[in-house]
Amino acid sequence: MTEPSATPTRQRGGRRGARQQTGGEAAPKAQPRLLYKPVEAVSADELEAIHAASLRVLEEIGIDFLHAGARQILKTAGAEVTPGSNRVRFDRALVESQIGKAPERFTLHARNPARNVIVGGDYMVFCSVASAPNAADRDGGRRSGNRADYQNFFRLGQMLDAVHVWGGYPVEPVDIHASIRHLDAIYDSLTLSDKPIHCYSLGRQRNLDAIEMVRLARGIDDATLDREPSVFTVINSSSPLRIDTPMLEGIIQMARRNQPVVMTPFTLAGAMAPVSLAGALAQQNAEALAGLVLTQVVSPGAPFVYGGFTSNVDMKSGAPAFGTPEYMKAALVGGQLARRYKLPYRSSNANAANTVDAQAAYESVFSLWGAVMGGCNFMMHAAGWMEGGLHASFEKMVLDADLLGMVAEFLRPIVVNDDELALDAMREVGPGGHFFGAGHTMARYRNAFYAPMISDWRNYETWTEAGRPDAYDAANRLYKSVLAGYREPPMDPTAREALTEFVERRKREGGVATDF
Amino acid sequence: MTEPSATPTRQRGGRRGARQQTGGEAAPKAQPRLLYKPVEAVSADELEAIHAASLRVLEEIGIDFLHAGARQILKTAGAEVTPGSNRVRFDRALVESQIGKAPERFTLHARNPARNVIVGGDYMVFCSVASAPNAADRDGGRRSGNRADYQNFFRLGQMLDAVHVWGGYPVEPVDIHASIRHLDAIYDSLTLSDKPIHCYSLGRQRNLDAIEMVRLARGIDDATLDREPSVFTVINSSSPLRIDTPMLEGIIQMARRNQPVVMTPFTLAGAMAPVSLAGALAQQNAEALAGLVLTQVVSPGAPFVYGGFTSNVDMKSGAPAFGTPEYMKAALVGGQLARRYKLPYRSSNANAANTVDAQAAYESVFSLWGAVMGGCNFMMHAAGWMEGGLHASFEKMVLDADLLGMVAEFLRPIVVNDDELALDAMREVGPGGHFFGAGHTMARYRNAFYAPMISDWRNYETWTEAGRPDAYDAANRLYKSVLAGYREPPMDPTAREALTEFVERRKREGGVATDF
Repeated sequence: MTEPSATPTRQRGGRRGARQQTGGEAAPKAQPRLLYKPVEAVSADELEAIHAASLRVLEEIGIDFLHAGARQILKTAGAEVTPGSNRVRFDRALVESQIGKAPERFTLHARNPARNVIVGGDYMVFCSVASAPNAADRDGGRRSGNRADYQNFFRLGQMLDAVHVWGGYPVEPVDIHASIRHLDAIYDSLTLSDKPIHCYSLGRQRNLDAIEMVRLARGIDDATLDREPSVFTVINSSSPLRIDTPMLEGIIQMARRNQPVVMTPFTLAGAMAPVSLAGALAQQNAEALAGLVLTQVVSPGAPFVYGGFTSNVDMKSGAPAFGTPEYMKAALVGGQLARRYKLPYRSSNANAANTVDAQAAYESVFSLWGAVMGGCNFMMHAAGWMEGGLHASFEKMVLDADLLGMVAEFLRPIVVNDDELALDAMREVGPGGHFFGAGHTMARYRNAFYAPMISDWRNYETWTEAGRPDAYDAANRLYKSVLAGYREPPMDPTAREALTEFVERRKREGGVATDF
Repeated sequence: MTEPSATPTRQRGGRRGARQQTGGEAAPKAQPRLLYKPVEAVSADELEAIHAASLRVLEEIGIDFLHAGARQILKTAGAEVTPGSNRVRFDRALVESQIGKAPERFTLHARNPARNVIVGGDYMVFCSVASAPNAADRDGGRRSGNRADYQNFFRLGQMLDAVHVWGGYPVEPVDIHASIRHLDAIYDSLTLSDKPIHCYSLGRQRNLDAIEMVRLARGIDDATLDREPSVFTVINSSSPLRIDTPMLEGIIQMARRNQPVVMTPFTLAGAMAPVSLAGALAQQNAEALAGLVLTQVVSPGAPFVYGGFTSNVDMKSGAPAFGTPEYMKAALVGGQLARRYKLPYRSSNANAANTVDAQAAYESVFSLWGAVMGGCNFMMHAAGWMEGGLHASFEKMVLDADLLGMVAEFLRPIVVNDDELALDAMREVGPGGHFFGAGHTMARYRNAFYAPMISDWRNYETWTEAGRPDAYDAANRLYKSVLAGYREPPMDPTAREALTEFVERRKREGGVATDF
């Protein structure tokens, strides 16, 4: 179990323990790989029935595309656009013809090449929490998103090996005016961290600004950027069966530059999708395929990630729920669909808890269970998401980093060879003995097991003397200590200067027009 | 998803929601079935290497059997017993010859036939916490086991559908003298509850008393009891490679009466087993096979459950750890081994947390993940276990019941048919609409989703107004309300009288001699 070198086709899931995860500047770690065969929640026939149902949705009902340009592109490609309306219908041949063009895996580049990640295949990527309107920690409580918290999330996540990619703004820095928010926010993300980033599709110009900033931060030319995916966007459909204007702008701008589109219908069964899981999945699939078609028509072969986010609502209150049994099953089927289309698969580490308690943990681990066993390649909201996305939590970010470390360790193969089977150690120790002092143990104990950052394994008496801290207390202490050890990653001065100049120029130009 | 009747080979995982689980007297529920193909953590070749290593352990090192009668039985069967010692060595032919005799599945009978459970095949059984020396709840704190708490655990678990079987004493009632404790304790378990029970192997007479009490409670004759497994025992080896006297007595007495033996080596890697996972599993397997051989030699075909409880210790402190990545991987391989021998597989819902916090939840759900994906048939400590088994928690029992309800729902198949694919509902609602009021939703919403007992999905403001209860608070309130609704299950008066008379007679006889 300790040395995976014996199984060359499998790669280490990552390094061990608290020391490596918290001490000094975090080094890039090997990405976890999906060790286990994904679990199939529906049969091959049932999967085809879901696929067929979504083709019928696209053909018979259609999707509203709230963007004349997108409709024109699709019409040219052979889709049926109803004159005077947003409705686009796709015959199945058109849809099928666009499947198989996007890559099964691609590299997402960071400004620090050691932070590049592979998206797809049997690789897993863990992204930070994204898009929360509020931030929270135990000391300061829950508050509106602001730039100070925003920056601290980047500092914290930069130090955590388990955060591979920024999934978006961990929290919305609402104290920056919307017209220039993306400029400051992306500047912070590219300077405080050297990991790959996301950009929001909130109108064409923001996508273009983000792409240019990433190019400047990497210090590459346009041709290189067009070859190398360097910033991704998440596209959510406005379920049911509608894709809004800025999202369609995002697909068009990103696909044209060969930058990844992570298409994620937000299909809450019983609200924006049918109450039946099969129906919600058919709708999810129809919306995802609609996004795939546009992406591939705009730019054949542009990287595209199939996102699944089907969950259910509390039918008494309408409140969204996550990490539920229904969510888990949908996560498994989402993976089956993505693999059917040979696309990387996006899932999430979600929960609906208001505080970092047992519920936050069980809903999260149920989500991870669905994602890992579903063959998730790209896990959004992997660290720090709370309250169904309504707040980002500093404590949850480090607690999740620990959970992700455990998942990575779970994905490291058990080594089975003579050394590890340890017959000699059993012979040495013999019946009734103990292994603490055995040579076999002494040679391995330092790195034998994952060393958690949060779990408190002290005995009850010692724990009581220490004031009975719970995991929330431990996470509170841990996040502050990791944050205190933050060091800004080095950046090429020329790149930084170019980035700074760009931001200043675009601010002088007024940024982006807003409605307010 | 709502009506599994469309998939007749799969059975409903159980009924839904808080109402059924807490209101009135809990009715027996359908057992969950293992819907998904178990996950394989090692290859077929690696599995054979582990099997081969354990055969070498049994052949070359041997096992200490601290019971002359057991050694004699094994010697007669062809094992090599070293004269003047406890050591027994088994050649591989002897071991292999005993594999395949025990049943792949059997029914464990309750005094109420509606509570019978199937052990093995694709069925899952959830057992209560067992053998904790301490009890705890938030109000009363942690205290030594006592009969009042003992009885309340039986009352609580009787009301929870997710508790199918009593895994042992939820907490040790140490205020009953050891000489008669088993009589009072078993009497309580057979009268306060009508679910199947366990008996401890703590000397021949206790096993015999327990078997007789179960026979009386069921009101059956000896021949029926010998046909119908009605009380099970857990046999732990004293790892490494030793089985103690009372455990061997237990195997002999239980096997002779065709009562199930759940053989569970407690192989903590780095302490009682090699620090390498493959080695710990080889040792677990050797010890389990040693128990299997004795059981089957005593009584060919006697029910036997393969138990896996390999975990790791904290190498800094030696403290045992549960629900770790290593534990999960061991749980997967344990299932592979059990299936290789066509035996039902026992795993656990374990954690090492001192309080009902995020750690308790994530370690538990990681344990459930390993168990469910490992193909566990018989889950010990499924509800109420805390602190590595050092205390049983009332709050954790209801929280676990909720987690088990979620697991059961996760194991219910997704129904894929035209009704569930909901094309008509999508057509009715159309792009940009919502499904809340759709006919398809209205017809299904009541039972569409699992309704959790603990999860708090209220919005942050409402939750804040309610005093910001966490899951521990919710579990505290819930367990008291379930307990308050307890009703003793009916019992045949003749059976109760016979049971009472037996206990009184055995008490007059002094119970069982003790050392103190």
